[in-house]
Amino acid sequence: MDSYNKNIEYPNFDFEVTHQSSSSGARIGKLTTPHGVIETPNYIFCGTKASIKNLSPTQMEEAQTDIILANTYHLMIQPGADLVQKMGGLHKFMNWKGPMLTDSGGFQVFSMGHGTCADEIKGRNTATKKESLLKITEEGAVFKSYHDGAKLMLNPEVSMELQHKLGADLIMQMDECTAYQVTRDYTAKSMEMSMRWGDRSLDAFDKHHNGTQGLYGIIQGGIYHDLRKVSAEYVADRPYFGTAVGGCLGGSDEEMYSILEAIQPINHPDRPIHFLGIGKIKDIFESVKYGIDTFDCVMPTRIARHGMALIKGAPNERINLVNARFRDDPEPLDASLDIPCSRDYSKAYIHHLLKAKEMLAYQIISQHNVAIINRLMREVREAIKTDTLEALRKEYLPD
Amino acid sequence: MDSYNKNIEYPNFDFEVTHQSSSSGARIGKLTTPHGVIETPNYIFCGTKASIKNLSPTQMEEAQTDIILANTYHLMIQPGADLVQKMGGLHKFMNWKGPMLTDSGGFQVFSMGHGTCADEIKGRNTATKKESLLKITEEGAVFKSYHDGAKLMLNPEVSMELQHKLGADLIMQMDECTAYQVTRDYTAKSMEMSMRWGDRSLDAFDKHHNGTQGLYGIIQGGIYHDLRKVSAEYVADRPYFGTAVGGCLGGSDEEMYSILEAIQPINHPDRPIHFLGIGKIKDIFESVKYGIDTFDCVMPTRIARHGMALIKGAPNERINLVNARFRDDPEPLDASLDIPCSRDYSKAYIHHLLKAKEMLAYQIISQHNVAIINRLMREVREAIKTDTLEALRKEYLPD
Repeated sequence: MDSYNKNIEYPNFDFEVTHQSSSSGARIGKLTTPHGVIETPNYIFCGTKASIKNLSPTQMEEAQTDIILANTYHLMIQPGADLVQKMGGLHKFMNWKGPMLTDSGGFQVFSMGHGTCADEIKGRNTATKKESLLKITEEGAVFKSYHDGAKLMLNPEVSMELQHKLGADLIMQMDECTAYQVTRDYTAKSMEMSMRWGDRSLDAFDKHHNGTQGLYGIIQGGIYHDLRKVSAEYVADRPYFGTAVGGCLGGSDEEMYSILEAIQPINHPDRPIHFLGIGKIKDIFESVKYGIDTFDCVMPTRIARHGMALIKGAPNERINLVNARFRDDPEPLDASLDIPCSRDYSKAYIHHLLKAKEMLAYQIISQHNVAIINRLMREVREAIKTDTLEALRKEYLPD
Repeated sequence: MDSYNKNIEYPNFDFEVTHQSSSSGARIGKLTTPHGVIETPNYIFCGTKASIKNLSPTQMEEAQTDIILANTYHLMIQPGADLVQKMGGLHKFMNWKGPMLTDSGGFQVFSMGHGTCADEIKGRNTATKKESLLKITEEGAVFKSYHDGAKLMLNPEVSMELQHKLGADLIMQMDECTAYQVTRDYTAKSMEMSMRWGDRSLDAFDKHHNGTQGLYGIIQGGIYHDLRKVSAEYVADRPYFGTAVGGCLGGSDEEMYSILEAIQPINHPDRPIHFLGIGKIKDIFESVKYGIDTFDCVMPTRIARHGMALIKGAPNERINLVNARFRDDPEPLDASLDIPCSRDYSKAYIHHLLKAKEMLAYQIISQHNVAIINRLMREVREAIKTDTLEALRKEYLPD
């Protein structure tokens, strides 16, 4: 299939590299969308079901958030893309005024949403549940709705139509996200199918295209550098607005970064590069060196629901506020952050809220974690400009 | 026992009636505490375990809240009054800067905190669970901690010490709160014991008294007007800062209001009168006519956790947003309220959040309900001044 429009343009979108590091591939960019301009590298927070867990758009703004995402898979099941469209699209529906991204829905279909992003994508979750995924063919994926058991189809045309109805600024081609344990042969065939699905996505996208959305192609190919390179060449060749890196990224950090290194020279130099589902602090420091411009991960709000707060310089990036050592700790999470959640509540109070099962705990920790990540991204951008990334990394990750 | 200091003074507290209705007992007051002045009638929101459920102090302020309370019973169990004292007292611990009230802890011991305030107090909950209440004697109440099963004692001296450590502005004498189904004889003996507990409370209070707290006496006596009058005379006679009306208030609204009517001429005219655990919209309109100055109830935040939003003029004061009729309702909860929760989210979005089990739903509805009640109280105060209470009541309760 080769029917896509080779001249798709994105008149209301732009990506400009405003600074290129001399010591690595790290860069500063300006990503323009119909809902505003953001500076990159930046972090896209997960508003899975059209809501950041435990946080309102107002609270996201207080935490200086630039951009969020929602998941097409969850929204197609509840409340349905038609309802969101009828309500004026995702931005109006959730009352989020800034840029937004949606994924294709494919990742959740293939992983069924279990495990953390890092577990899934880095291949650590070898027991991925696939009960509700019924069939993958050239046509698309057939799966059962977790809501009512209805048989549903997701394919490039459906995904583009759903994402069109949802109306986010940045949208994703349909691809298959392969797991760590599959064979090289399966990965190769899947990657080739994802390229064909990419062309079908471009074709379907072009039918709806009215300048309000920018489409990303996704680089697949698992842990195999030669496959990754073929996929990266494909994405760079096609008229996508952006480049995304998806799929299984190996069993170790080294394997993951080696993949980024392999595709770096091939990636289209004028397009923003999004790293799908990756966003631990250490991942950010390494990945920006390979030119990654945006990240997304559920981590900041997910670990909050387990009582864990991101702390600059803490072992493993975080502290667990359920721990009894915080019972009478009068210190706030981070007094240097100018936001009540980080500055105005003692760890002792948050510990108490967790013990008392008060939902306010999750709100405070979630907003703090978002604020910490947004400050991190501001500091990372500054450090790229001043070539002090390694010194900043040591502040966050002293080990 | 008659050992209490008959000349307890409250130098940092004041209550001034600034306007008295000519058509009813309704009045406007100015209640001064060390943490600020509030205008009455006003509503005291329940921050049971040192947290308003799903709402931060910042969000309470956004909803124009003047005053909140916390429950001594819950806090003595988790995190303990000593810990709160060590952390600088309740205000600092929860980061609430305005006036606060604590109850004696007795109500929860006797009801074990089950059922809604209205069910408990209006006597509708006849199957009250008492498994953890072990013994009530002249000395006090012995009960089991729901946290770890430990045997605990609550009596006037313990309650005063706990409330002193918690450090709220307005605190309550220890009393026994009798249930609807008990006999007149039991109610009479209990009311007499509550008076003796009141004197022990005054005595214990006076030992800690340093001008930071104002003590309320509580009128008991169940549904029996003669007993209520004896209890009201007791409270008016003793050097309390405020008057509270507690206990079982009958099985109907009429029974409840007849109790307020019976005690109205006896209540000390220069003291604020608090109605314990009562706070439906219709209760407020009726009760202010008998001179009630403050209300408290978990209702606004509790019904929010069942998806119910308070709406001016709606049948039964509220709507249930889980209802399918809101699936595609583009209207906000109340566009005339200048706060995002009420103005910026469609009912369709909140319905979706409830269906998707997103906690943001409870945050939005809770804050809206608090904002609605605070506006109601502002409007009630204005209506008392202009003698238009009945017209306002019809706006809220058209049936």
